[in-house]
Amino acid sequence: MRHAVLGTGMVGKAIASKLRSLDHDVTMGSRTADNAAATAWAAETGGRAATFADAAAWAEVVWNCTSGGASLEALALAGADNLAGKILIDLANPLDFSQGFPPILSITGRDSLGEQIQRRFPQARVVKTLNTMNCLLMVDPGRVPEATEVFVSGDDAQAKAAVVEILRSFGWAAPIDLGDISTSRGTEAWLPLWVRLYGALGTPDFNMKLVRAT
Amino acid sequence: MRHAVLGTGMVGKAIASKLRSLDHDVTMGSRTADNAAATAWAAETGGRAATFADAAAWAEVVWNCTSGGASLEALALAGADNLAGKILIDLANPLDFSQGFPPILSITGRDSLGEQIQRRFPQARVVKTLNTMNCLLMVDPGRVPEATEVFVSGDDAQAKAAVVEILRSFGWAAPIDLGDISTSRGTEAWLPLWVRLYGALGTPDFNMKLVRAT
Repeated sequence: MRHAVLGTGMVGKAIASKLRSLDHDVTMGSRTADNAAATAWAAETGGRAATFADAAAWAEVVWNCTSGGASLEALALAGADNLAGKILIDLANPLDFSQGFPPILSITGRDSLGEQIQRRFPQARVVKTLNTMNCLLMVDPGRVPEATEVFVSGDDAQAKAAVVEILRSFGWAAPIDLGDISTSRGTEAWLPLWVRLYGALGTPDFNMKLVRAT
Repeated sequence: MRHAVLGTGMVGKAIASKLRSLDHDVTMGSRTADNAAATAWAAETGGRAATFADAAAWAEVVWNCTSGGASLEALALAGADNLAGKILIDLANPLDFSQGFPPILSITGRDSLGEQIQRRFPQARVVKTLNTMNCLLMVDPGRVPEATEVFVSGDDAQAKAAVVEILRSFGWAAPIDLGDISTSRGTEAWLPLWVRLYGALGTPDFNMKLVRAT
């Protein structure tokens, strides 16, 4: 399957490399076709580097691995036409670091970045997932010694089912479907607690497991 | 120990009854001394019912079990002088139900209800805890089949240590100290995800366990 991974940071590299290791065709997208990080990644992995637009036009599945504050602009550069009908997997969180650490959410209440992306690109099939954890864990859930949780949010049931299959191929046994894209409000709101847990535990290398009464 | 439990709803009753079962002296506080729910609870359990002010004046430890939107007013009725020097355990979440379910947070970003209470009552020793779960679980962590997490936030280390001891007496083996009262921003922000998990799991009878990489 042809995957465009938009973003050349730690999240983009982790996702793109995992997809390559699973024998997918992967293009890392960035603002310019000759982005140094993207071309270096492509040379190492047998993937490709391209502009946001060329990567999205070519792909069947598009991953938004840009930072939350830059996501709408990056996706606009990718182009609404190039995203139409595609599964658009959104991993970004709307974090505001303008006053340093810890960041706060720049979107709260009755909206979320996931919903903003779906509204701005109504023909894309947006699925929010993996935004509740460190990128090392996203692609290697066995890093922690028990099965922990990953969530999916989205309006398109078929797109969510396809993303669940991809997550299973990453090692996630039982992704939890939270419901429509408005449930992104929930997973994005995890971040203010996640950063405090990072501080208290002294590591970002953790995840939550939900335990129910029997 | 003398505990004032402010609030006569499900949370107040759960906490007050648990404290009574552990042989503490407990007064349930409400707006009026003859509140029906409080007097009924007192008759059943051997506790007492009193006004917010009388309960707080008498107590060594004060529990804020009022709803988040009413907490500052209820604590003002309890009286700053009656709270001065006391451990004030805040369980409330600043939930806005004005547009129905799911609620949103009425306080986000660089503030929290825990901090607002500490600022408004600077001589109280505020500890935020137990606000991340259903009230049945607060007083009976063994309802779920694995050890799960409870958090404490507060500026006063001795007050936090005393609250940790109370939590241990409730059955919480290892409360996690998140840091100062500003970490209430984290635990209050859990609620938007909690309500979505409630929806997806079909039960409020769950809690999170954190699993770290080894």
